[in-house]
Amino acid sequence: MLPAPSTRGPSASSRPLRLGSRMSPPAAAARRRMTVSAAASASSRISREDAVARMPPLAHREVMLAVAGEAEERLGARLLPSEVPADVAWFGNAAGDAVGSVDVRRGAPGSSIAFMLEAWFHRELPGGGAIDITALIVNLNGATDAPHFVMEFIQGNPTSLIVLLDLLPRRDLPPHPSYIDRYYAATGLDARRRSVLERVPQARPYVSPSLLIRSLWSPTAVVADVQCGEQGGAAILEGIVRGQLASAAMDVLGVWLEHCAGAPEMEMETAGRERLVGRDRKVAATELELNLAANLPRMFAADVSDRVVAEIRKAFMGS
Amino acid sequence: MLPAPSTRGPSASSRPLRLGSRMSPPAAAARRRMTVSAAASASSRISREDAVARMPPLAHREVMLAVAGEAEERLGARLLPSEVPADVAWFGNAAGDAVGSVDVRRGAPGSSIAFMLEAWFHRELPGGGAIDITALIVNLNGATDAPHFVMEFIQGNPTSLIVLLDLLPRRDLPPHPSYIDRYYAATGLDARRRSVLERVPQARPYVSPSLLIRSLWSPTAVVADVQCGEQGGAAILEGIVRGQLASAAMDVLGVWLEHCAGAPEMEMETAGRERLVGRDRKVAATELELNLAANLPRMFAADVSDRVVAEIRKAFMGS
Repeated sequence: MLPAPSTRGPSASSRPLRLGSRMSPPAAAARRRMTVSAAASASSRISREDAVARMPPLAHREVMLAVAGEAEERLGARLLPSEVPADVAWFGNAAGDAVGSVDVRRGAPGSSIAFMLEAWFHRELPGGGAIDITALIVNLNGATDAPHFVMEFIQGNPTSLIVLLDLLPRRDLPPHPSYIDRYYAATGLDARRRSVLERVPQARPYVSPSLLIRSLWSPTAVVADVQCGEQGGAAILEGIVRGQLASAAMDVLGVWLEHCAGAPEMEMETAGRERLVGRDRKVAATELELNLAANLPRMFAADVSDRVVAEIRKAFMGS
Repeated sequence: MLPAPSTRGPSASSRPLRLGSRMSPPAAAARRRMTVSAAASASSRISREDAVARMPPLAHREVMLAVAGEAEERLGARLLPSEVPADVAWFGNAAGDAVGSVDVRRGAPGSSIAFMLEAWFHRELPGGGAIDITALIVNLNGATDAPHFVMEFIQGNPTSLIVLLDLLPRRDLPPHPSYIDRYYAATGLDARRRSVLERVPQARPYVSPSLLIRSLWSPTAVVADVQCGEQGGAAILEGIVRGQLASAAMDVLGVWLEHCAGAPEMEMETAGRERLVGRDRKVAATELELNLAANLPRMFAADVSDRVVAEIRKAFMGS
């Protein structure tokens, strides 16, 4: 077992959560030492819970733990054991200013699961504060054209959060109204979108700077920027994350597990199946270049980010 | 020439615009008589300007007049003369509570224009007030995969307006990043979107109740609900329509004329061209059912809406 991180001493649980707050210098120094030794000495793979426990506590990470746990439990034997190396399951910068964890479990042969990928990143910023990014993606394979599951939190400060929660379409939607009906209208997903975007007054639609990223979402995607203001904003945001966001996330995952991961194998011609998988790969390739390959080097040293991006690319490209 | 409508007497130009306001009973009665006789007696086709002049003055109609005029002038001989019958170029309910005008000009042989369609609808509501819908659509044909132009205003009262302004993608965007680059990123369209959605405080993203309609838009679409409140809202809205909306509309039209309508014919295999045109038709068919065929019967009597929908369907279906 790796040593317990300094931020989770006996007093940690009794402290109020201070999301993304700057740690006091001694705590930061202690954690820095821990982080580096953990990254260097890891000989066995770390569990999701242990990896998250090594990062500063954050409501959005708790929600993601619950969602990832539920996905894993419900998918059961349809997921193979993780094969990522220990230095991808837990990694950090030598400077001690960033830690992360990536896990990939491929789908079992005969299942419709391509892979489940989770990514947990925490990076302290030179001027104070931190950026925390957490993502869970479960992609299906060519056995079905049902949407992929995606959920991501991007938190740059304690009072605001970007949330992306969607079942990603795998068809060109406008000429396929029956696809929209089957996976989006009949499953009541728009009520989940509205539960965040119309009923959380602090939530605004989030517009990605990338036009490609904007084009990925389904018409019922929860793509929101939740801004809670300086006055008591951290506590308000925590309430929203543990309340409406957690609830929407569990609901959307439930729809996905039942109607997408649980859909029977589709009858499809080989050519149609190849087009579907080809589309998945094309989209993944661009997304990788734009998103991870562009952003990870800003958070982690080159050797670390190269190693992690390579592992993620393997998952998406199915090799 | 048809008689000048009663709402445009000598005093009309000196009156301040009262957008969508209820007309005084004598004016309404006069216009009602005019409307019915115009619809019944029209023997020659009415011009766009004359049709609009017969409807109550409205800033969004002035903007659309300018945009449609500019499109027509710049496209010149690439548009064939209109072929819609006189009773589609101007029509109304026998009850006198709704008038409208639809025009379609097909593209000249050898051009990349499929058709230009404009629609002007005005319907008085039983409880007072009116709904005004104005649309301009210019679709391209299989000579190019460049986006179609679409602009629509939906105004249910004098203080708020839904605006839809976009170059509609004709490809499945996520696997075609170069299409996004060519038509949306390189043309600076996102600055036009921001000029409305980030710089007009009264503008909020508009979310259509139809999931299919939501899926049509490009990542740079101006799809906004502009709400100006009761206090002086009508004048504020007029300023926004004549200012930022008019300017964004002319800019987007300019981009479309230069980069889409003006693009050289693409080299494409026959099969690729057929898929492209097939996609256009599929999307148009669903859009027609959802939008026009569903909404026109709410504004016009069945015989009128049937006639108009049939003419619009002919344009979209290319027959």
